[in-house]
Amino acid sequence: MATAAQLDRVRIVLVSTRNPLNIGAAARAMSNFGFRHLRVVNPYEPAFREARSAVGASSILGSAERYDTVVEAVADCNLVVGTTAVRHRQLHHPLRRLEDGARLIRRRMGASRVALLFGSEKFGLSNEDLSHCHWLIRVPTCDENISMNLGQAVAVCLYEIVRDAKTKRVPEKLPRASAGEVERITLKLLDALHTSGFLEMRRVADAEERIRRLVRRLNLPARDAVIWLGIMRQILWKMTSGQKSENEKNGES
Amino acid sequence: MATAAQLDRVRIVLVSTRNPLNIGAAARAMSNFGFRHLRVVNPYEPAFREARSAVGASSILGSAERYDTVVEAVADCNLVVGTTAVRHRQLHHPLRRLEDGARLIRRRMGASRVALLFGSEKFGLSNEDLSHCHWLIRVPTCDENISMNLGQAVAVCLYEIVRDAKTKRVPEKLPRASAGEVERITLKLLDALHTSGFLEMRRVADAEERIRRLVRRLNLPARDAVIWLGIMRQILWKMTSGQKSENEKNGES
Repeated sequence: MATAAQLDRVRIVLVSTRNPLNIGAAARAMSNFGFRHLRVVNPYEPAFREARSAVGASSILGSAERYDTVVEAVADCNLVVGTTAVRHRQLHHPLRRLEDGARLIRRRMGASRVALLFGSEKFGLSNEDLSHCHWLIRVPTCDENISMNLGQAVAVCLYEIVRDAKTKRVPEKLPRASAGEVERITLKLLDALHTSGFLEMRRVADAEERIRRLVRRLNLPARDAVIWLGIMRQILWKMTSGQKSENEKNGES
Repeated sequence: MATAAQLDRVRIVLVSTRNPLNIGAAARAMSNFGFRHLRVVNPYEPAFREARSAVGASSILGSAERYDTVVEAVADCNLVVGTTAVRHRQLHHPLRRLEDGARLIRRRMGASRVALLFGSEKFGLSNEDLSHCHWLIRVPTCDENISMNLGQAVAVCLYEIVRDAKTKRVPEKLPRASAGEVERITLKLLDALHTSGFLEMRRVADAEERIRRLVRRLNLPARDAVIWLGIMRQILWKMTSGQKSENEKNGES
């Protein structure tokens, strides 16, 4: 059985939720299955207020944290998992069945902080939201009606995470870098790609999201985050100092 | 995976439900997981009417059968299973964890008609209701909050019934880059680290081996090898073209 300490490492993140009943339902399922930390990103304000002030609103809602962006909401998490109903859309992420994904989450929450993201009722998670995820899970629904009610989707996912009492939990191999560290490295890399002209040579609309996913697929170990950041900084410094000298050469300095 | 014929043998029975939203939510979860036959026993009439007339109400609600008593609602079923949040009440029935109960239901629905009963939001199933059940299942919720929202309880139970524990699923893993590809990227990175002065600032005997291990810890996916190599080449080009121009500036070229 998952311990309270393990469940305390999980952040349930509701992105752009519209319906106060769904926020309340998510909090109730969390309470049923022993999760405590709710984060809401860019909620529909009246919905969030109404959910918090509802009769019997739980302490989970009272202590829910509010963020403007996904990147801030997951910054301190080492594993970021998105949920999706879709299975055939051009997904740029590994897509796991809930059961398999929940097993991985159980393993990781032993030592790392895990964020589990749920998108809005109507649109789910956007491609920008998804670009912050390491991988995705989907609940195995029927083809005829893949779209679950948000509160029910949260309940099923959390049930599956706490379900398996018997599974042996293998300790996680290498602790992974936090989403905040990964994002810092990503930003330096993007800088370097712009400076070097790499992105300018391959113009695509979603270049930044592609690079973000590229970096997430590396599964950067926590122990290496500092050195990779140092490497990117040094390379950037070199590239721009080279540029300066070129400018100087051309008498533009 | 459960077949449509098997799921068609299951009757979801809502007893004395008060809230139309919960009737609608139960129907939605049924639709998500491929169940089609809903029965309602002694519902709060306005709730049932409202649920059926709701915008987007499914064909499941349209064809829901209405009964006055549990005994009538389960008369044509071979196995009758009740759900309860309680685990310590004087239960006169075998009480199974959801996972174990769902396994038995899966086995039985191959040839028999199975009824799964859910009680009212406030009181659950009465002792009279329970007396029609062969055995009970409970969702493994926390002691602190065992009472689930009805719609969420239905979703979790139905998910567990269709979740096929035995199907072997090969977890999707990203194929990793070959050692040759990883080494080519490593060599470009080493070039970049020398050119940028990074390695010169941190003189250690085994610098190259450290960098080699650093790159191996990334577990580079095969699909990304080409782009990472391209990135390193471009960055290197940018750094050395800057250098050249610096050399030119100094009249050394």
